[in-house]
Amino acid sequence: MEAAAAKPVLRVAAICGSLRKTSFNRGLLRAAAEVCEDSIPGLRVDQLDISDLPIINTDLETDGGFPPAVEAFRAKVCQADCFLFGAPEYNYSIATPLKNALDWASRGKNCWADKPAAIVSAGGGFGGGRSQYHLRQVGVFLDLHFINKPELCVQAFQQPPKFDNDGNLIDDQIRERLKQVLLSLQAFTLRLQKD
Amino acid sequence: MEAAAAKPVLRVAAICGSLRKTSFNRGLLRAAAEVCEDSIPGLRVDQLDISDLPIINTDLETDGGFPPAVEAFRAKVCQADCFLFGAPEYNYSIATPLKNALDWASRGKNCWADKPAAIVSAGGGFGGGRSQYHLRQVGVFLDLHFINKPELCVQAFQQPPKFDNDGNLIDDQIRERLKQVLLSLQAFTLRLQKD
Amino acid sequence: MEAAAAKPVLRVAAICGSLRKTSFNRGLLRAAAEVCEDSIPGLRVDQLDISDLPIINTDLETDGGFPPAVEAFRAKVCQADCFLFGAPEYNYSIATPLKNALDWASRGKNCWADKPAAIVSAGGGFGGGRSQYHLRQVGVFLDLHFINKPELCVQAFQQPPKFDNDGNLIDDQIRERLKQVLLSLQAFTLRLQKD
Amino acid sequence: MEAAAAKPVLRVAAICGSLRKTSFNRGLLRAAAEVCEDSIPGLRVDQLDISDLPIINTDLETDGGFPPAVEAFRAKVCQADCFLFGAPEYNYSIATPLKNALDWASRGKNCWADKPAAIVSAGGGFGGGRSQYHLRQVGVFLDLHFINKPELCVQAFQQPPKFDNDGNLIDDQIRERLKQVLLSLQAFTLRLQKD
Repeated sequence: MEAAAAKPVLRVAAICGSLRKTSFNRGLLRAAAEVCEDSIPGLRVDQLDISDLPIINTDLETDGGFPPAVEAFRAKVCQADCFLFGAPEYNYSIATPLKNALDWASRGKNCWADKPAAIVSAGGGFGGGRSQYHLRQVGVFLDLHFINKPELCVQAFQQPPKFDNDGNLIDDQIRERLKQVLLSLQAFTLRLQKD
Repeated sequence: MEAAAAKPVLRVAAICGSLRKTSFNRGLLRAAAEVCEDSIPGLRVDQLDISDLPIINTDLETDGGFPPAVEAFRAKVCQADCFLFGAPEYNYSIATPLKNALDWASRGKNCWADKPAAIVSAGGGFGGGRSQYHLRQVGVFLDLHFINKPELCVQAFQQPPKFDNDGNLIDDQIRERLKQVLLSLQAFTLRLQKD
Repeated sequence: MEAAAAKPVLRVAAICGSLRKTSFNRGLLRAAAEVCEDSIPGLRVDQLDISDLPIINTDLETDGGFPPAVEAFRAKVCQADCFLFGAPEYNYSIATPLKNALDWASRGKNCWADKPAAIVSAGGGFGGGRSQYHLRQVGVFLDLHFINKPELCVQAFQQPPKFDNDGNLIDDQIRERLKQVLLSLQAFTLRLQKD
Repeated sequence: MEAAAAKPVLRVAAICGSLRKTSFNRGLLRAAAEVCEDSIPGLRVDQLDISDLPIINTDLETDGGFPPAVEAFRAKVCQADCFLFGAPEYNYSIATPLKNALDWASRGKNCWADKPAAIVSAGGGFGGGRSQYHLRQVGVFLDLHFINKPELCVQAFQQPPKFDNDGNLIDDQIRERLKQVLLSLQAFTLRLQKD
């Protein structure tokens, strides 16, 4: 990890699977951007908005073209070096809005192909864990290269509080674990890119 | 299976996971309705439309109330005796529109609870199979009781053709296998209901 | 649940997925037997030993016959009314000894077919949870009918201690949750058996 | 792929999940060794035997030591550059003997850690496919880096015959697809190793 200055700045596209304003998972992604800015040279987090994507229906495609919101989203996915998914668990699987985004950017030219990715989750129960394994199976087809470790599943309702009422992460231990996820994603991305 | 006349008419709510007009999975559900009408006394299939559901965002809920399209859909789910899912596989997991419907009807009072269900799929590769196991995991939380056998995953692109250009099932062997799925769902529903 | 006296005594075959003497999962199954004896009329737990099963190799089968230890185990599985699996998680999936037992009793005549089952787990991380969903997928082919709720995944290393050094359950809250699992298994078994 | 001469010879440890002598999956691994010898410079397949491993029971460990057969197997796993799993599907999940091998080499110092891997399967139904996704989940904890593409699931009972009575692969199209798996494994291993 020496010579960080010589590293290119890697662009992480952060995608939150929930559309709720105060989503804990969105809070994790905001915290990830702060952590990168504060203490990870060479890694920058861009938040990607998925709230205006129509629900997937390939009848909406015309001659290989997509609705404007989909085109715009796909362009941003294609520009990213790697991905950070904020992946809540809905009914023991992937949150619908996240699956929608994954599906749209896989159509025609698969925009996810051959890029590294990491997942962070927050929620009750296993902290979103069940959704992460379904997401990893999706990644086989999308050709995403997920980091294996560390995994981060925040049990959001355990004491002390992990998030404030606006969904901001307020727990320093989890912030440190989030940093370790980002460092692992950075290292894996460099390892896969290096030529 | 004797004394079919004495059976109550069971209402199967059929839900297609794809929004495409010519979807093979929708074709399977239409065929299921025909099969019941033609040759399964006591079982009736109602097609449930999910195309007007907004993509799930719990910020759209107000005081436990749901958007009108969601309320209407939830009411139909609550009235059903059991479910038949036409479940395409999108990127090795559940199709987004189906997950959306599952999520909306699980909010607040879980409308799926304690009811039997079956899954049929059509597609390339494993014929939709990978989505079925993710859907079964969702069913653990939703408290759905899936039949185990028979499973039906139609490999839609093998010869001879299984569907016409409008998505209508044109293969008699698959129609017979579909009938066996429906008979199994009927028997399991009666077994679980009987008091 | 009134009129318990009229119920048949249901026999639960309890199978521990770990071969360790002081296994927490074995401790859960011992506690299950005690709970039934103390407070659940009509339900009896029999511990099945799987430690002497050879590792599965169908070359060991001769003319449909099985090695003696396998024959003995299969006979006990066939006699059970339902199953309780003590399912540790090994490397994010089913413990090998449990999978071995499941595989042997599925050969030829499938001894698990059409019977209800429940799963309890103890361990670090998600308390064994990841193994439970893989086990449920196995159950689709084995034709097991798993109860959906309640689920029990004991996070064995959280304070206060849940097990003593011999693997005995010493936590009353978990004992109560275990009782609820057993009551659910009993009710589901009666519901499926009733004719 | 030019300049193959300059590549180090990568050692692929091939592990068959079935103990049957005429296993199709073992046949796939033998064919993989031939393909490498014939047409992939820089890649060598070593068959690892797992038939003498005791079924896992950590009570067999003493002061961090393992039974002799386990020690010998672990040493070979540690020496490999990457892995090729011949992974049959037993009851919709991983074959017990393969899970046993995975479990033993994960104890104490995890011998699989940070190494690339590929999976090939043969069988009925989905050709072993369901076991591959469970195996990939195991790989998250073991820290294996699986190639995403191509996947190879041989539907062994479709015509024309794919294997002879001894389990030898006799289908040239599948041999070519197997070669593509090996080339992908080689490229991914070099990409991850390169410094």
